[in-house]
Amino acid sequence: LIPTLYYAPGTIALATHIALAEAQAEYRLVRLDFAKTEQRGAEYLAVNPKGRVPALVTDRGILTETPALLTYVAQTHPAARLAPFEDAFAFARIQAFMAYLCSTVHVAHAHLRRGARWADSEAAISEMAARAPANMDECFRLIEAEMLQGPWVMGEHYTIADPYLFTLAGWLERHGIDIARYPKVSEHHVFMLARPAVRRALEEQGQAA
Amino acid sequence: LIPTLYYAPGTIALATHIALAEAQAEYRLVRLDFAKTEQRGAEYLAVNPKGRVPALVTDRGILTETPALLTYVAQTHPAARLAPFEDAFAFARIQAFMAYLCSTVHVAHAHLRRGARWADSEAAISEMAARAPANMDECFRLIEAEMLQGPWVMGEHYTIADPYLFTLAGWLERHGIDIARYPKVSEHHVFMLARPAVRRALEEQGQAA
Repeated sequence: LIPTLYYAPGTIALATHIALAEAQAEYRLVRLDFAKTEQRGAEYLAVNPKGRVPALVTDRGILTETPALLTYVAQTHPAARLAPFEDAFAFARIQAFMAYLCSTVHVAHAHLRRGARWADSEAAISEMAARAPANMDECFRLIEAEMLQGPWVMGEHYTIADPYLFTLAGWLERHGIDIARYPKVSEHHVFMLARPAVRRALEEQGQAA
Repeated sequence: LIPTLYYAPGTIALATHIALAEAQAEYRLVRLDFAKTEQRGAEYLAVNPKGRVPALVTDRGILTETPALLTYVAQTHPAARLAPFEDAFAFARIQAFMAYLCSTVHVAHAHLRRGARWADSEAAISEMAARAPANMDECFRLIEAEMLQGPWVMGEHYTIADPYLFTLAGWLERHGIDIARYPKVSEHHVFMLARPAVRRALEEQGQAA
């Protein structure tokens, strides 16, 4: 069975898509139409009861959550050397970076348009949306100052942390934030766009590379 | 150097503390007083610029983020068999569970008392707090129905996923939710409380075991 990635354009699924391409993995793609809320339809909920993307269907079952999918792609494609499994400390640093992105940065972003997850009134949802850019800025200032070693997130070696950061950094403009505010993040973005795997994933999703 | 865990009682640091005890690791504890906002003081920010707990100081540097710390403890104490590193799919399932806890469940919880992270007005913060129990309930219904295999999270084998779930499930009462609403989660909690490592960690944090 060739692994199948369920994705929608403009979502965090891009990170796993890029990692699959970097690993030169075989994969199939299934695109969900969020405008038709296909991610909440019965057909997809049978794949992923959380109603979110990405999900990766493997011959042993379904996997979800970006940090898990990225780790899985790296571990099942050791030749691509996308994570240092042999070095517990270095691996933990990657895990820490990914956990920060999923629990803090992605959550900061989600308050821009998905505030209805956490409050009901228009007033509260609008207030969260208005605050979201400041929270994203705080996250990216920390990434710039403390986390992104350069040229890649973990330094000399490209890892699964890179497509994850790339994907979230690509959302800064939705917050009205110019990525140039963070020179290292901005340079990282340029480096990423030059990689064939990144261009391939963007093209397969129908986005300009 | 003996690893040092920075923690505060009642926080997610308990999960890593339990894992260290389960692994029979050597560790030291440093307690932060959140009532004095020591987590935001200059001394601690030099340890962890994110101003959160847990942080683990190792001889190679500082690690943060619960999924990373749990993975690190498991990987550096292989005799305890707290995660199946040799099985990429099984390991990814644990990573997926931990990512769900950190990005969705912990975030649902944080809106109860930490709403000021995402909005400014008293009205919006109160509204988030009022909604938080319903979101926690949704999370735990999914954990009960789809994720917790029993007796442990991943089935027959106790893993790092277990202290993480145990810690978050212990917060249900802050939302006015009786854990008995979720029979498998409730049983898991009882099993956990019977483990010597759990009792040791609770006692070391000054909590009744």
